[in-house]
Amino acid sequence: SDSGDGNVSACEFLLSGFETKAVLRDSAREKNIFIHGKIADQETVVILEKTPIREENLFELFKNSRLKLEMKNDIYSTYQLHPPPHLNEIKTTVVCPATEKHVKKYLRQETFLVEETGEDYRSITLPFIQSQSFSIQWVYNILEKKAEADRIVYEDPDPKVGFVLLPDFKWDQKQLDDLYLIAIVHRKDIKSLRDLTSEHIPLLCNIRKRGEDAIQKQYGVPANKLRVYLHYQPSYYHLHVHFTSLSYDAPGSGVERAHLLSDVIQNLQADAQYYHSRSLCFPLRADDGLLSKFKNAGRL
Amino acid sequence: SDSGDGNVSACEFLLSGFETKAVLRDSAREKNIFIHGKIADQETVVILEKTPIREENLFELFKNSRLKLEMKNDIYSTYQLHPPPHLNEIKTTVVCPATEKHVKKYLRQETFLVEETGEDYRSITLPFIQSQSFSIQWVYNILEKKAEADRIVYEDPDPKVGFVLLPDFKWDQKQLDDLYLIAIVHRKDIKSLRDLTSEHIPLLCNIRKRGEDAIQKQYGVPANKLRVYLHYQPSYYHLHVHFTSLSYDAPGSGVERAHLLSDVIQNLQADAQYYHSRSLCFPLRADDGLLSKFKNAGRL
Repeated sequence: SDSGDGNVSACEFLLSGFETKAVLRDSAREKNIFIHGKIADQETVVILEKTPIREENLFELFKNSRLKLEMKNDIYSTYQLHPPPHLNEIKTTVVCPATEKHVKKYLRQETFLVEETGEDYRSITLPFIQSQSFSIQWVYNILEKKAEADRIVYEDPDPKVGFVLLPDFKWDQKQLDDLYLIAIVHRKDIKSLRDLTSEHIPLLCNIRKRGEDAIQKQYGVPANKLRVYLHYQPSYYHLHVHFTSLSYDAPGSGVERAHLLSDVIQNLQADAQYYHSRSLCFPLRADDGLLSKFKNAGRL
Repeated sequence: SDSGDGNVSACEFLLSGFETKAVLRDSAREKNIFIHGKIADQETVVILEKTPIREENLFELFKNSRLKLEMKNDIYSTYQLHPPPHLNEIKTTVVCPATEKHVKKYLRQETFLVEETGEDYRSITLPFIQSQSFSIQWVYNILEKKAEADRIVYEDPDPKVGFVLLPDFKWDQKQLDDLYLIAIVHRKDIKSLRDLTSEHIPLLCNIRKRGEDAIQKQYGVPANKLRVYLHYQPSYYHLHVHFTSLSYDAPGSGVERAHLLSDVIQNLQADAQYYHSRSLCFPLRADDGLLSKFKNAGRL
């Protein structure tokens, strides 16, 4: 029926001759896949993503689909359902011609879980951090009000237990659903969780109490709807604490990287040197310089 | 062709008469939907989730699917792709007959973070768990090979440190991306993390070592690409350990609910009573009976 329209036909079969070179990234959770390949000698990136299941289609879906039994146990059973194609499309995005930059942008790096002992920290991680000259001037700019001063939600100026609280860049502040704030401490001598001892308990308790109060006051979100945690490894080595909405599945809030502030405080109360001596697990990307240091040290 | 088999036919059209009462929850990100309804007068919960896109199907998918153009702008264009049904099934889980508790379990609710002291556990949580008669017969069916015996990936039959390892329901085992297995211990006397003491270190180390080895052997996935953890609160009170792919942002792997097995072992090595005495944070849904118990006790 579209034989008179060259464009539609060209589109319809655009991907039938697609040559896949590599899967750049995919997500089983989000049901998408990013593919690098070629269409008629042109570098191309194709992104496929299954579509959400819509309530208004359920009646037709149940009526016109067949089930194939996979497993039955007591009251539970699982099946494969084959719906009519028009109720089950895949959203497709084509970038053609694609540059090398597009390809890199979509390429996922493998990650590896590293288990770092206290000794590993001192012999591998700390020298690596010190050898990096990754500037944290932007953090000092915030603390000294040279930048982002208008974004500050709360400040405790005390030099020992004080901090600045401001929205994370990832939060557009348009809805409370994905609330995300960061508390940055005024002290400049604490690189990460590894430097914390019982000496810092008053600082941590102060951040917890006053951070939660400020968020309640400013946004009306109570403490029991917040997830308050530190990252290890952090993305910059100046102590900061994350406050995210409990209902928001925030990137970086997984157990392999996040440490609840309430656990950190309790662990330090029980053992002043907990984070000095304990093994800590964290993920590293394949292209992270720290990963090669662990490999070279035979620790991976 | 299956007309001679009453069971297969019964399954095939099981959902054609399904009456939808309410959508309990859905996720546009994860492409799933949880529906409460009725099959032949029985309360039923149906869970639909689109399946991940698999690399090995791409050739056929591109060859045999048609595209419908939606938008074109410079090098970018978007389409709807209609794949052959056998390449685009929907994973379907049926709970029938479903109790009110099942319906509630899947209903999306506000969540609150609770901080439970050891004393709270003994005076509030434990009596609540004991008052609930939520059956774990399905767990015993697995341990006794009365159900799902063919799904068992590995077993250590030892009554003290042994366990059964099998794929979680949420994993269809078709790709390693969202690898998800569960180790269920043979011992029936450990409800959760709270019951663990230094006495259980050999059990936990055994699960870690043999579980990781079995996954390496069966799936070729090494230990440093796994996230191994317990839930607190768990969804059923018989000790089990989660093994998920590190690259998979698994539901329930957030810091507010997951406890890395390596941390649990270290904490018990340092303090035999760590999980007896420590405060533990976890999220509770607004409709969870345990939340009202905490409210009534003035602990929220």
